[in-house]
Amino acid sequence: MKRALLALLTFGFTLTIGGLATAQTVDPLPSWNNGKAKKSIIEFVVKVTKKGSPHFVPPSERIATFDNDGTLWAEQPMYLQFFFALDRVKALSSQHPEWKDKEPFVSLLKGDVKGALAGGEHAMLEIVMATHAGMTSDEFAQIVKDWLATAKHPGTKRPFTEMVYQPMLEVLTYLRANDFKSYIVSGGGIEFMRPWTEKVYGIPPEQVIGSSIKTKFELRDSNPVLVRLSELNFIDDKAGKPIGINQHIGRRPIAAFGNSDGDLEMLQWTAGGTGARFALIVHHTDGVREWAYDRKSHVGQLDKALDEAQTKGWIVVDMKKDWKVIYPPAKR
Amino acid sequence: MKRALLALLTFGFTLTIGGLATAQTVDPLPSWNNGKAKKSIIEFVVKVTKKGSPHFVPPSERIATFDNDGTLWAEQPMYLQFFFALDRVKALSSQHPEWKDKEPFVSLLKGDVKGALAGGEHAMLEIVMATHAGMTSDEFAQIVKDWLATAKHPGTKRPFTEMVYQPMLEVLTYLRANDFKSYIVSGGGIEFMRPWTEKVYGIPPEQVIGSSIKTKFELRDSNPVLVRLSELNFIDDKAGKPIGINQHIGRRPIAAFGNSDGDLEMLQWTAGGTGARFALIVHHTDGVREWAYDRKSHVGQLDKALDEAQTKGWIVVDMKKDWKVIYPPAKR
Repeated sequence: MKRALLALLTFGFTLTIGGLATAQTVDPLPSWNNGKAKKSIIEFVVKVTKKGSPHFVPPSERIATFDNDGTLWAEQPMYLQFFFALDRVKALSSQHPEWKDKEPFVSLLKGDVKGALAGGEHAMLEIVMATHAGMTSDEFAQIVKDWLATAKHPGTKRPFTEMVYQPMLEVLTYLRANDFKSYIVSGGGIEFMRPWTEKVYGIPPEQVIGSSIKTKFELRDSNPVLVRLSELNFIDDKAGKPIGINQHIGRRPIAAFGNSDGDLEMLQWTAGGTGARFALIVHHTDGVREWAYDRKSHVGQLDKALDEAQTKGWIVVDMKKDWKVIYPPAKR
Repeated sequence: MKRALLALLTFGFTLTIGGLATAQTVDPLPSWNNGKAKKSIIEFVVKVTKKGSPHFVPPSERIATFDNDGTLWAEQPMYLQFFFALDRVKALSSQHPEWKDKEPFVSLLKGDVKGALAGGEHAMLEIVMATHAGMTSDEFAQIVKDWLATAKHPGTKRPFTEMVYQPMLEVLTYLRANDFKSYIVSGGGIEFMRPWTEKVYGIPPEQVIGSSIKTKFELRDSNPVLVRLSELNFIDDKAGKPIGINQHIGRRPIAAFGNSDGDLEMLQWTAGGTGARFALIVHHTDGVREWAYDRKSHVGQLDKALDEAQTKGWIVVDMKKDWKVIYPPAKR
């Protein structure tokens, strides 16, 4: 019995001491250099989570939204989902002999991406529909997983799921530890992201919002399936972001993280609410460790939102100065 | 110090004893009569939550979906949202002198609902658009809240939010206590439900899926708003339910609860997955305490789904026999 008492007592003390130690010494954002950006993230989280604080926000309303391309993972030299589409075109070409005479496929199969995209939005849409539609949602999820298991970024030679930003992973973990619910709000395909976001970011499929094509419910030999159709459903970009947020979440976020003009309306919608608000832009300034681009980039253009960040006092992260590392250590 | 030790020890024992007592004696579904339905709900929950069980499902995949009208709250003599629309037509009529000569509004303002709905789906749509569009999403939420604060069901004279089924509230609580995430998947308006589902059902807005009209993002004097437009976006009924579930959740539910043919595809989609599955239909058999209706009802028709429940072995709740009470006690 004495031993039991001792165990209980020791356990109680350990908890208390451990708790204090954690609060005082552990840096929640170790990959961030000390500076305004890091300080402002921590100050915001402390402010909204401290009981009795005039800025306190109850856990159920601690909603944060994150753009994906360029905010949580890389987006150069083109959106990473497009590498998937290209690989799918190659894989499917034997079943589509007509592609040999048809743009944008002719150019793509020759490896001429620029030529393929000369057809603009229409060409892009044709590529997406040819590679993302026609199968069931379950089959598509498997195709994405299989691709990610072997595909590598042509520049870094790393798996695409390792091209995520270590400092942002730390922000996600820090927010989660403080009872935030974080959502991805991306122009990328919702069903392209969901098979891997839980493993890579800790964000479950129900917290992923993205662009989508329509689906159709069907019974195949009394087996219910959802078939992906060649028809756009929703574009989750620019003004579509607050619309998608409202449709999926039904609450206004109190914090939003983006990197481009495509995130401007999401940042406006988030910052425009009452009470404590946080808006942050990742500025790609590191041409050595990552890519440097902003106002004139063909991908992730950051122009209007950069100006508005100055006017509104939003936090602009200087990747080169603010981040100690870009990517997490390689898995193997 | 002795006192502290004693306190710790006592606390430890109380917890243990309390825990055992709870597991053995507390009935999670006290408003359900003992019978197949109640037994099957409890058996399913035990089966998927018991560690080491061959049917164990990890908490993140414990997704349950509930229809609303006729499953969680009443839907007679017409969908309760339609009472809201009628009251809005009356409230707005002074701003719409043209309604005096225009159907379906003429009939509605005379109190002739049947006449108004003689125009079928088109008339219904006109009424919905006239009453649910044109304002911002924040304004609409406030209108719904204000209406619910005073409106009463013409038959029972109870507030609409008290016309919920006590036995189903217990199912929601029981599932939540077992780490399920429950969603509403309703043909009703998503923004009509979200202002009150958390308070009434414990279901937060992000777990509500419903029909919707389109919205538009706008800056009004640099204040961002979402304006509700007179254009349908999505009908979350019949084959729309699995589509809405996939769009919002991105996982297949393991349990689904409905009451009509409008829920058939959701039940098929849920029951059609691998591993332990649960599908339940609330059959309205109690013409005294509630309403009795099924195969030929103009609201909540239950015909095909009732047949399929027999074939597939889904649970059919007989409201008259299975439920001790229908509604919760009145608030005051």
